Amino acid sequence: MKMQAVVMRQGQLEQAEVLVPRPGPREVLVKTLACGICGSDLHCVKHGRQLLASAREVAGIDLFDFDAPVVLGHEICAEVVEHGPDCRRTVGSGTRVVSAPFLLRPQVVTLGFGSLDTPGGFAEYMLLSEDLLVPVPADVPSDLATLAEPVAVAIHAVNRGRLGIDDVPIVVGCGPIGLTVIAVLKMRGIGPIVAADLSPARRAMAKAMGADVVVDPREASPYAAWKTLAGADTPSRFGRQTALFAGFPFRQSVVFECVGSPGIIQQILAGAAPCSRIVVAGVCMERDNFQPTYAVMKEIDIVFCFAFTMEEYAEAFDLLASGKLRVGNLITDRVGLSGVQDAFDRLANPEGDTKIVIIHSH
Amino acid sequence: MKMQAVVMRQGQLEQAEVLVPRPGPREVLVKTLACGICGSDLHCVKHGRQLLASAREVAGIDLFDFDAPVVLGHEICAEVVEHGPDCRRTVGSGTRVVSAPFLLRPQVVTLGFGSLDTPGGFAEYMLLSEDLLVPVPADVPSDLATLAEPVAVAIHAVNRGRLGIDDVPIVVGCGPIGLTVIAVLKMRGIGPIVAADLSPARRAMAKAMGADVVVDPREASPYAAWKTLAGADTPSRFGRQTALFAGFPFRQSVVFECVGSPGIIQQILAGAAPCSRIVVAGVCMERDNFQPTYAVMKEIDIVFCFAFTMEEYAEAFDLLASGKLRVGNLITDRVGLSGVQDAFDRLANPEGDTKIVIIHSH
Repeated sequence: MKMQAVVMRQGQLEQAEVLVPRPGPREVLVKTLACGICGSDLHCVKHGRQLLASAREVAGIDLFDFDAPVVLGHEICAEVVEHGPDCRRTVGSGTRVVSAPFLLRPQVVTLGFGSLDTPGGFAEYMLLSEDLLVPVPADVPSDLATLAEPVAVAIHAVNRGRLGIDDVPIVVGCGPIGLTVIAVLKMRGIGPIVAADLSPARRAMAKAMGADVVVDPREASPYAAWKTLAGADTPSRFGRQTALFAGFPFRQSVVFECVGSPGIIQQILAGAAPCSRIVVAGVCMERDNFQPTYAVMKEIDIVFCFAFTMEEYAEAFDLLASGKLRVGNLITDRVGLSGVQDAFDRLANPEGDTKIVIIHSH
Repeated sequence: MKMQAVVMRQGQLEQAEVLVPRPGPREVLVKTLACGICGSDLHCVKHGRQLLASAREVAGIDLFDFDAPVVLGHEICAEVVEHGPDCRRTVGSGTRVVSAPFLLRPQVVTLGFGSLDTPGGFAEYMLLSEDLLVPVPADVPSDLATLAEPVAVAIHAVNRGRLGIDDVPIVVGCGPIGLTVIAVLKMRGIGPIVAADLSPARRAMAKAMGADVVVDPREASPYAAWKTLAGADTPSRFGRQTALFAGFPFRQSVVFECVGSPGIIQQILAGAAPCSRIVVAGVCMERDNFQPTYAVMKEIDIVFCFAFTMEEYAEAFDLLASGKLRVGNLITDRVGLSGVQDAFDRLANPEGDTKIVIIHSH
């Protein structure tokens, strides 16, 4: 059986007809209904070689084969079509589902970065592990359901920030992840929230998602805004901090780095209050540099984020499905497979779209 | 009244006669008995301009005046000589004391980096805040008592590592701080401890301080040693970690960076297990660079350390005084003021001394 897919090979995207995969033990074949386009999909196309080199060096794995066809797409909503061997059939055929993008094989497969045997959501059909299926209630649209994945990423970043209820977080960069972080912070009642982005369109989105103070960093310092809001002018002598910082605001800030460009971490080190925690959710593909003395003298924590736990994915979907977290307006357009290349081009412009979701027409 | 001191000016040390300072309100004049030479003293002499520039940029303060005379020395043991105004006299004249190196003035002074008005322990007399004085029991030698300060730094670093009892820590760099970190870990029953240093002398000291496996990183990987000891070969699917790392050891490591040279952080990022915590206790004065993808894909935490809290200083002294922590063999020589320049030269060689303490002869 054949299906349509958008295939990446050697950094190029093209629509092609490929084989429908066959489900292995405890796997199901699903009809892909919707699939979000993620920043890391853009990275794969633009920086494929670097990403592969990093994955090889860091994890000792070949994330994908640069020269072979790869089907991207890991923000998925789908419908169960067929059960493979040994399935418990707890989720029946015809059920709409979401799933964290993993296939639980002896060597776990990260979906959306694999070969044609385990395609991602840019194909009309894909394989999912039965154990990871989460049924989607009838009132939750498929495109909205795909947001469970980026929301899980944001929840993970916020969890890694370990904020107190009276913290005043700073979100640097208001792309899809920064905006979702803002929404999660707002939902949890943490704030006021300071956000910064160079783009007027993204700043407007940040306001819409719940940021209380939104600045253009070329015109105003997010750290000065933080200082005013956090009431951090009182010197402190005996905290974790030492007396060297007596003239300094003692209160720590939590800064979310959601940009992923070289130099941003150093900018944050320079601006953030002592004892701050920097949560790095941006993925900078290039080598970066910084001045360790800044991090040392301020006793900074830098925590890097990659993905999320299964619990965070489940929480993300519950929040979306229950309407407790309203992030539907992140989706600024919907396209068919024939519109994917154009969508990639448009997503490179921060003044344009935030999140584009592929809707499959079977 | 005049006194002898070793004075630093424009990156040069020289012995000089200077005025004995006058204690202000709630301050005492003390006769300095012993003062350890710290790595940051070496930094001040060698990298004074960079250190000042960083302190100015980071903290908005002039740590000291590069062109004015400065009396270094913040690892001190002293004897109370005279009480300034408004003292409660809870600690009488003639009492031997230690103190965290701070003067609690409205603008707190960090002792050991100040002008001639508030000299550090490289002078025969100095000022301390009455509120910070800790009496030294008769059976604790003055040179040993000076170690309260570096031990407080090590305790702070270990506390920032937030290790569990079954963690297998890695200490990279076995200078005075790395060695003290090893001793603190050992005392707390955390281990086995892996240590790495290029110097045979320092590796021998690391063994003596309690490291269980000590490697020359040119010959063996401390991370491979860690993996064997930590029994970290079992893949894990559902931790904080994501499935991408299924082929990876799940168990996190805590790595203490006690070197402070460019490139070390990247080396640790490359070697450490996923979800590891890197505690940076080394002070790298130069710009450093790293590959963010390593930190991101492994979800690393990097926590930077500067000094310690007052509670940690008090704990450090208690551990020394009670004999619970035995680090006296860190002190490899004792010199008078006339031997300070030579001591600085010798401390630059890792095969030579570990800690040299100045003993004042009044």
